[in-house]
Amino acid sequence: MISVHFQPGDVTVEVEPGTTILAAAEKAGVVITAPCGGRGRCGRCRVVVDEGCDEPTGQERALLGDRELADGVRLACEATLRDDATVRVPSGSRTVSGKILSEDAWKHLALHPNVHVDHLDLPEPSLQDQRSDLQRVAEGLGLAADDLPAHEAALTELPVALREGDFSVTTVRVGNRLARVLPAGRDPQALGVAVDIGTTTVVAYLVDLQTGARLATTSAMNPQARYGHDLISRIEHVQSSPTGMADMRGAIVELVNDLISQACEEAGASMEDVYEATVVGNTCMHHLFLGLEPRYLAEAPYIPIVSRPVELDADDAGLAINRAGSVYCLPIIAGFVGADTVAVLLVSEITSRDHPTLAIDIGTNGEVMLWSGERLLVTSCAAGPAFEGGEISRGVRAAEGAVERIWLRNGDLDYATIGGAPANGICGSGIFDIVAVLLDTGVADTMGRFIDDDAAAHLPPAVAARLRGDGPTREFIIVPGGDGQQELTFTQKDMREVQLAKGAVRAAVELLCAEAGIEVSEIEEILLAGAFGNYIDRRSALRMGLLPEVELERIVGIGNAAGAGALAALVSVAQRRRAVELARTAEHLELMASASFQMVFADSMIFPDRQESGVNSSASGA
Amino acid sequence: MISVHFQPGDVTVEVEPGTTILAAAEKAGVVITAPCGGRGRCGRCRVVVDEGCDEPTGQERALLGDRELADGVRLACEATLRDDATVRVPSGSRTVSGKILSEDAWKHLALHPNVHVDHLDLPEPSLQDQRSDLQRVAEGLGLAADDLPAHEAALTELPVALREGDFSVTTVRVGNRLARVLPAGRDPQALGVAVDIGTTTVVAYLVDLQTGARLATTSAMNPQARYGHDLISRIEHVQSSPTGMADMRGAIVELVNDLISQACEEAGASMEDVYEATVVGNTCMHHLFLGLEPRYLAEAPYIPIVSRPVELDADDAGLAINRAGSVYCLPIIAGFVGADTVAVLLVSEITSRDHPTLAIDIGTNGEVMLWSGERLLVTSCAAGPAFEGGEISRGVRAAEGAVERIWLRNGDLDYATIGGAPANGICGSGIFDIVAVLLDTGVADTMGRFIDDDAAAHLPPAVAARLRGDGPTREFIIVPGGDGQQELTFTQKDMREVQLAKGAVRAAVELLCAEAGIEVSEIEEILLAGAFGNYIDRRSALRMGLLPEVELERIVGIGNAAGAGALAALVSVAQRRRAVELARTAEHLELMASASFQMVFADSMIFPDRQESGVNSSASGA
Repeated sequence: MISVHFQPGDVTVEVEPGTTILAAAEKAGVVITAPCGGRGRCGRCRVVVDEGCDEPTGQERALLGDRELADGVRLACEATLRDDATVRVPSGSRTVSGKILSEDAWKHLALHPNVHVDHLDLPEPSLQDQRSDLQRVAEGLGLAADDLPAHEAALTELPVALREGDFSVTTVRVGNRLARVLPAGRDPQALGVAVDIGTTTVVAYLVDLQTGARLATTSAMNPQARYGHDLISRIEHVQSSPTGMADMRGAIVELVNDLISQACEEAGASMEDVYEATVVGNTCMHHLFLGLEPRYLAEAPYIPIVSRPVELDADDAGLAINRAGSVYCLPIIAGFVGADTVAVLLVSEITSRDHPTLAIDIGTNGEVMLWSGERLLVTSCAAGPAFEGGEISRGVRAAEGAVERIWLRNGDLDYATIGGAPANGICGSGIFDIVAVLLDTGVADTMGRFIDDDAAAHLPPAVAARLRGDGPTREFIIVPGGDGQQELTFTQKDMREVQLAKGAVRAAVELLCAEAGIEVSEIEEILLAGAFGNYIDRRSALRMGLLPEVELERIVGIGNAAGAGALAALVSVAQRRRAVELARTAEHLELMASASFQMVFADSMIFPDRQESGVNSSASGA
Repeated sequence: MISVHFQPGDVTVEVEPGTTILAAAEKAGVVITAPCGGRGRCGRCRVVVDEGCDEPTGQERALLGDRELADGVRLACEATLRDDATVRVPSGSRTVSGKILSEDAWKHLALHPNVHVDHLDLPEPSLQDQRSDLQRVAEGLGLAADDLPAHEAALTELPVALREGDFSVTTVRVGNRLARVLPAGRDPQALGVAVDIGTTTVVAYLVDLQTGARLATTSAMNPQARYGHDLISRIEHVQSSPTGMADMRGAIVELVNDLISQACEEAGASMEDVYEATVVGNTCMHHLFLGLEPRYLAEAPYIPIVSRPVELDADDAGLAINRAGSVYCLPIIAGFVGADTVAVLLVSEITSRDHPTLAIDIGTNGEVMLWSGERLLVTSCAAGPAFEGGEISRGVRAAEGAVERIWLRNGDLDYATIGGAPANGICGSGIFDIVAVLLDTGVADTMGRFIDDDAAAHLPPAVAARLRGDGPTREFIIVPGGDGQQELTFTQKDMREVQLAKGAVRAAVELLCAEAGIEVSEIEEILLAGAFGNYIDRRSALRMGLLPEVELERIVGIGNAAGAGALAALVSVAQRRRAVELARTAEHLELMASASFQMVFADSMIFPDRQESGVNSSASGA
């Protein structure tokens, strides 16, 4: 075995000699950009190694210049390790960088759950000690009897458990409430489940609350999708059908129960041992889970029914966990700024930064958060589904065959698909790349217009040949048809959709900064939540002007913040308090209420000149 | 109309000339003893009037001496009023005296209910004011959003009510929890119900919590009686049948729902408008109402499951009041000292006395409470059902035809029945009287033995003629048979039953005093709860040595304390806090745990000599 040390990150891993640097990096948990799937085609996985590698391969010699090879630059997917080595991964070769907060972030939190397990050896009652069973237990826990409310189920089992256990018992409390009493020797597991209800996907994480160990994770598509993929059509279903609310609530509650049940089965646990569920979702998912009328979320002025945390009995929530169990729904902020956004604020620790920091979470809707160093401002914007492939003529979700990377090479375009399968569409990260390529080559101008054939004569011929059609039907061929390949194009209309989405997000950034009284240029760090943050090429995002100019290093993916937030709240009541505090102090800015919104939005749709962007273009590998 | 002023009590009432003093007293709420039913037979309703009355009737001349007539003594049932008068009711003519605390005592309490109704005119939301519906309401109530938890039902109706009412709404809160929101103009009634669950009888009092008005009272027999009249047989049913607990809980919950429903119907109200129920009962009734295992109440060391107040959602209690309603069960003290005893402590205000005071509540079980001036001690004693007519050969419950008064007149016995109907048995108050008569005449000695025929020769002949039989079958004829009358006797064995009950109660008094470090003779005041306190002849109770010697004036009936306690807790959270404090500070003495119990009990079964009793005997009217 040889030892490979990665920088930055200071991660060391042991591998067999002959392993590629890319494989070693994967083992070390270091993410290196490899859009072509590690097949030596794109030349994007450049790393710097001083010694310890085999000689460069033919592909490396073809894709890297002599000076680069002399400087120790290698392609991570090609170079094989022979001896102990130190590998430096330049920022350009990392999709995300810096501190990665994923749903595992909660593991670093001090375990401080809301569920308490105690073992008690109590004195037996006598004519001289006639305390009630509950008072005996309360005082055994060091509490006054009044400070130990008890669930009916616990009161029912209390006398029998005490006497079966000869007054040695194990108690489980949820919050301050007695939930279960078992005779000594029949120790209960105390489990909890964190639930992330997304519009598309629902995830349940089963956790042992005594050890902090994550026991199982289950997920499934949100079955409410049968009533519509987007929030508005779901809200309309609630309105239009007498059973609308029951359908919608029933579907999600049933799924959450199924996911918990599956997770318990995987972990060999019983649902009776699950005492608490924490729930995160956007405001509409939150309302539908609780059976609350969502209509007013969708009508101006977009008012939620309740924004503070909702705690309710598992029974009332319809969850089939322990009957004395409890459900905690994280707070929300506004009609379009939900608990998922609170989770981003929570797990990103944005307010502990000493510099202006932006956080962005983009799905169908976009939420933009700004920490000015003093104030915390949040807003939502109708980014539309363009960044997820929706409304784009050949857009697809990120799945096998989706074009996920596009770059310029030798005066022409190259691309990579997920899983290396034949291209069947373009997904979010591919859309970012194609827009950057079109801007860099000059195929599109700063107004997003595709140039005409006359102007295209100045382009590299291979690129110019990809343009066809006129006016609104003009389009750019990404993948030519034939040879068993589907033709894949990006149209002028697609460009407009991207512009609208980009304009909405950027306008939000501009208006938040204006409200906070800072310049956009003062932002030093950008946190990207969700899949969006993990997969887009940061340079492409900068190139299209979606993000303010910051150092690439300071654009940080923070992973699935919603799930991480639900987990953080599950394992730590201190985190719940923080979430409440963040939701309370966050100032919600309603973009529609801003007099200057339309103008800022229009300005924000314009793409930056190549000169404006201080970043090396995505074509740097050419 | 003429004006009649009663003393003591300072009550004045207007009546038509020609009204009897007894009728005027009834109108004034002054209770005058009239065991013969106001028929001029017993001469027990003596009052003193200076002027304003018609001339004495023939009955008055027959029953009152000349000197008494000269002193202004009249019979209240015979003397008719002609002019303004002041009537003095001597203590001997009052069954109860002093401050009367009945279930109406709560009316004097400041209204401080746990249910709050508020009318709010709220600002409409806008893009500049996007507070959640709940936060808007909370702030309208002057609260932070976090301080207004909400029932799911209230959250569900909240958005619709706000918009239907153009943001003018009426809210109902139970405790701090939002229970209901109605558009302005549809103002809800806010009702509450106080429930007194007795082993035999269950009473529900419906109250308007906004005005304090009592709207209706309904009562019925406790249907658990079908499983046994006493607690032990009900507890045994719970043990012996798999559906035992469900039967027992179901029966009482169904009845309470029926009583609330009837009361609402009477008051023209809806059960949906009832937001809170307070519940008082002995510990066994309390446990069965809550579905809690009662077994350990009946086995030494008699441990209740929970003693502090139990608050639960109406749903969980099975009550069909408003679904956001709540149920408050008053605290209990011990296995045989329940919320009914706490109610006695509460409504009697025993701890505000500056002298040693005793309180006694006797049903099937007896509870004895002692306020020493510093310490509050409580205990229960197995008084048995003798004082309610149980275990007595011809004992009956207090109902039409029951002999309720017995007295000596002209060297023989006279009696009165309830409603003047032919005698069909003897009820509690009659039992007290017959024992006093037997002791006063010397038919029974201080050991409770009926004297033999030789000794009986010294008795007045009419009395001696009523004795017959030998040894254990010896008995005293109260009502001779014939002339269409049933024969009614009181046996030696009946005497023994009374002695056991009397001994148990008196032993409790002795041991409480010993524990408190005071002499029994230091007790200055005695409070008698329940029907027992309202109907027994205090002189008879003193004569048999059940009660310590105090002035007749200081023996005070406090009425149905259980019902009054439930009502007090319903209309005032301050009273709830007092109840909790009383339950907490009351020291429970377990008689069985006292080494000297058996000896004190044996001593206490002995009746006092006639000389020992400083009280005029019940024969004083003869």
